[in-house]
Parts: sequence; structure tokens; C-alpha cells
Amino acid sequence: MGMGVEFLKGHGTENDFVVLPDPDGVLDLTEARVRALCDRRRGLGADGVLRVVRPDMGPWFMDYRNADGSIVEMCGNGVRVFARYLVEAGLVPTGEFEIGTRAGRRQVVAHEDGTVTVDMGPARVTGASTASVRGAAFTGFAVDVGNPHLACVTDTPVAELDLDDAPGHDPAVFPRGVNVEFVNVLGDGALRMRVHERGVGETRSCGTGTVAAVAAWLHGTGQRTGKATVDVLGGQLSVVVEEETATLTGPAVLLARGELDQSWWDSLT
Amino acid sequence: MGMGVEFLKGHGTENDFVVLPDPDGVLDLTEARVRALCDRRRGLGADGVLRVVRPDMGPWFMDYRNADGSIVEMCGNGVRVFARYLVEAGLVPTGEFEIGTRAGRRQVVAHEDGTVTVDMGPARVTGASTASVRGAAFTGFAVDVGNPHLACVTDTPVAELDLDDAPGHDPAVFPRGVNVEFVNVLGDGALRMRVHERGVGETRSCGTGTVAAVAAWLHGTGQRTGKATVDVLGGQLSVVVEEETATLTGPAVLLARGELDQSWWDSLT
Repeated sequence: MGMGVEFLKGHGTENDFVVLPDPDGVLDLTEARVRALCDRRRGLGADGVLRVVRPDMGPWFMDYRNADGSIVEMCGNGVRVFARYLVEAGLVPTGEFEIGTRAGRRQVVAHEDGTVTVDMGPARVTGASTASVRGAAFTGFAVDVGNPHLACVTDTPVAELDLDDAPGHDPAVFPRGVNVEFVNVLGDGALRMRVHERGVGETRSCGTGTVAAVAAWLHGTGQRTGKATVDVLGGQLSVVVEEETATLTGPAVLLARGELDQSWWDSLT
Repeated sequence: MGMGVEFLKGHGTENDFVVLPDPDGVLDLTEARVRALCDRRRGLGADGVLRVVRPDMGPWFMDYRNADGSIVEMCGNGVRVFARYLVEAGLVPTGEFEIGTRAGRRQVVAHEDGTVTVDMGPARVTGASTASVRGAAFTGFAVDVGNPHLACVTDTPVAELDLDDAPGHDPAVFPRGVNVEFVNVLGDGALRMRVHERGVGETRSCGTGTVAAVAAWLHGTGQRTGKATVDVLGGQLSVVVEEETATLTGPAVLLARGELDQSWWDSLT
């Protein structure tokens, strides 16, 4: 193999990423290359690519692409993996630092135990609405976390829900579609969630979804601020909702590092 | 990252594998580690693991494990990727050599263009039977390629078939289940195939399935020997059926090489 482009593979609560260190911005990261890298049969396989770019000024920049090659502004699970890489590569020290994203700079804290806290910005409850799953209605709250969510706290065990199809929602409230969370309260400050992401399907974790879930649970119990753990299929996250912002804390794992075959990379245009 | 176990990632017509070079047989490759490696979210992701072992005597041995950790005797796509690795690592020269498998020694030829030919053993047509897809019946031939197949040549375009569910088959003929191929004849010696593998579902390629498809096509046209190309979802394979054996030729791609994080590996028991 002619070895070339460096990569790492990692995940945050099983939302998985290929990290491409490219401090000098020399990689020609085309849509075709992103799609091939993320292809789970002919490539490495991932939900997205995190290109690591050093800008002329300011913090390290996370150039995030979806598996389909499209550009995404921000990803709560991806930014944790990105922060973990910066620390493990010795590019920033453990502790508090900023990461640049297309949604602006994000404050993160890389903890000694490998978890990362990221500032997600404010979560705003904007109203009530209803989701439906196979004819059953679930009431919930519309929550704006930069993207639209409908978070439904329910007594129906979320493990029993069939989320193969997108839950029904009110297109008048969510004209551009919506991410839908179903939430069980396991105890005080302990939630369990399943999530259906618009345009994707059910996923094993969704960072903004957990923030929406906690914000909706707090709102429904008459609280403006508070915190909770959220069990998702891919692990556990912790959310703190404050007046002005919300933070998300969770694991970030880098499990492999290597190089792509140069002729394979060159064959992708 | 504390770097440890060496790996490569490759595929043969999009049947994908993690290769673990372990010449001295020191890796403790537990079922849990195989499952984690093959997990497409929390690991590298693959259909199976190919451990490369140097035995005391005889050829390099392919220790093949399925993604679920179970042991498999032989895999026509896997053995091509295995052969490609041996050549690229300089362990054998390009050309003809043997590979040890749990199904015995297999003769392979690693070609200069990166494709590999593997001796698949004999394909024996043992009778006729019928598969059903959503109420539609397809007649075909039962073919034994070491494992059981039902290969149905049909005029129905295979692209139109719904193979989400396992096709119906006659349990009296196939008491342990069967791999079912649907085959279109595109021209003389040119076939297209889709395959449903027992216990797995539809796959993008199946080496023994392509051999069964060609054997069934030859049998149906009154020929005992012959050759054909077979287009599968993951690419194209070539099959030669002879009196005593059959050979399969196709691409083998190694696209990445690296090391697993040692603490991640150690955390899997």
C-alpha cells in the first residue's frame, strides 16, 4: 500500500466520525471523497467527517461534513470527538478551550477522564405540539436548539416504540421538518430518550436532541433551569440547562489511527 | 492514543473485512473483540475479521470470524482480500500460492492488476426447486458449493425484486436454510445477480453465490462447464466452472492501514 492521508476513527455515544488532520488545509476533500470515506462497505464508514483545520487566526476549526457530502454547521457529538483529538494530538492542553465551527465559536472543556463538555447555546421552548407513532399521539414541546425539535415526555416505555418510520408532526408548526424525541423519566434528573432525526431516521444518539429533551422535561415540570442525565441507545449524556445557554457532557472515544492508501484516495474524484 | 494492534481495512466487491496481521499468533482475539471491531458505530465496522496467522508448517492461515464472533470455514471474498494483503505485505510474491483455511488449503492467483483468483472447489447441481418472493414463484436449481444455494435464472429484472424478507423455499429440500440467488442473463456469459444470504439478509456480494449462479445458468442451458461474469451490487466477479472445480476472480481492495488504540483494545474482554 502506498500510504497517504492520515485519519483517525472515533465516536461519541456511537455517533461515529472519521477525523482528518489537515492543519495546513491542503486536502482536496471533495464530496465524492467524503461519501467514499463514510461508505460503510467500500470505505472506512462513519456518520460524518471532521476535518481539522488551523486557521490564520483564532481557534482550531471543525470542518464537518455529513456522510452524504453535505456541509453541516454544528454537531454536539462530533465536537466532542474533535476536542478529544486536539488534546490527544497535543494541539491544546486538557481543560477549557474554543473550537471554531460554521455556527460560530464553541466553548469546550476536555476533562481528564476523557469526557468533553460543550456549550450548545440556548435551548428555547417555543410552544406545544403533537407527534404520532402508528396512530398513537404524544404531546410534547417544540424546542429550538439551533435546529427544530419536538420533545415528548411520555409514560409509554420508549423501548416499545416503532421508529422505523418518521413520526407524524404538524407541518404548520415545523414547515422544514423536525427531529422528534421520546422521553421517559427514570427518576429525578434521569431521563431515557430515543430520537428520530429528520432526513436520517432513528439514530443512536443526537446531541441537540438530548438538550431538547432536558429542556422539555424542565419546562413541563415548571423549571427554567436544571440538569439531567439522558440515556440514549449509544450511551449516556449529561445536560445542564441554564438561562442563557445549555451544556452537553459525554464520552469521546478515538479507537484507531492510520493512513489511507494513496492510490485509493487518488482514485476518488 | 496509546497505539497497539495493527490492522488493515479492505473489501472484495464491497464485502468488507478488518485484517489483523498476527504472524506469531499472540493476539487474544475474543468474540467480544471481534464484535467490537466489526461494530459499524463503536468499532471499525466490517462483515468479518481476517486474522493472518503463520503456522508451523504449510501456507499462511486465514482465521476468519463473522461479525457476530462466530467461526466461518471459508469466504470467497475474504480470501481474495487475505491474498492481497499477503502480497502487499511482501509475505508472498505475486502469482500462484496456497492459503490455509478451515475448509482446507485453497489455491489462489494474485494478479498484477490487483484482482485475485481463488479455487472455490466443485459446484454440484443437485436438483430443482422453487423460491418465492411476495407470492411470485421462481424456479431454480439447488447447487452445493460447500454451502447450500438455490439459484434462480429469471426474466424478471432482479433490480425490481423486494428482498427485504427472506425468499420462501422448500424446507424438505433445504432443511438447514439456503442462500437464494436471482439471476438475469444479460448476454452470453454475462449475468446479473442479487443474493439473499441465510441468517444475514441481502448482501452486496457473495462469492459462493456467484459460483452457484453460473453453475445453475450453465446447467439450464445444457452445459457442464463454462464461464461468465456476474454483476453484483458491489461490483463484478468472474466465474469459471470446470468438471472438478470452479474458480472465482475479482477485485480485492486494501484502503487503509493503522493501529488500534491499546486502551480501547484492552477494554474489550
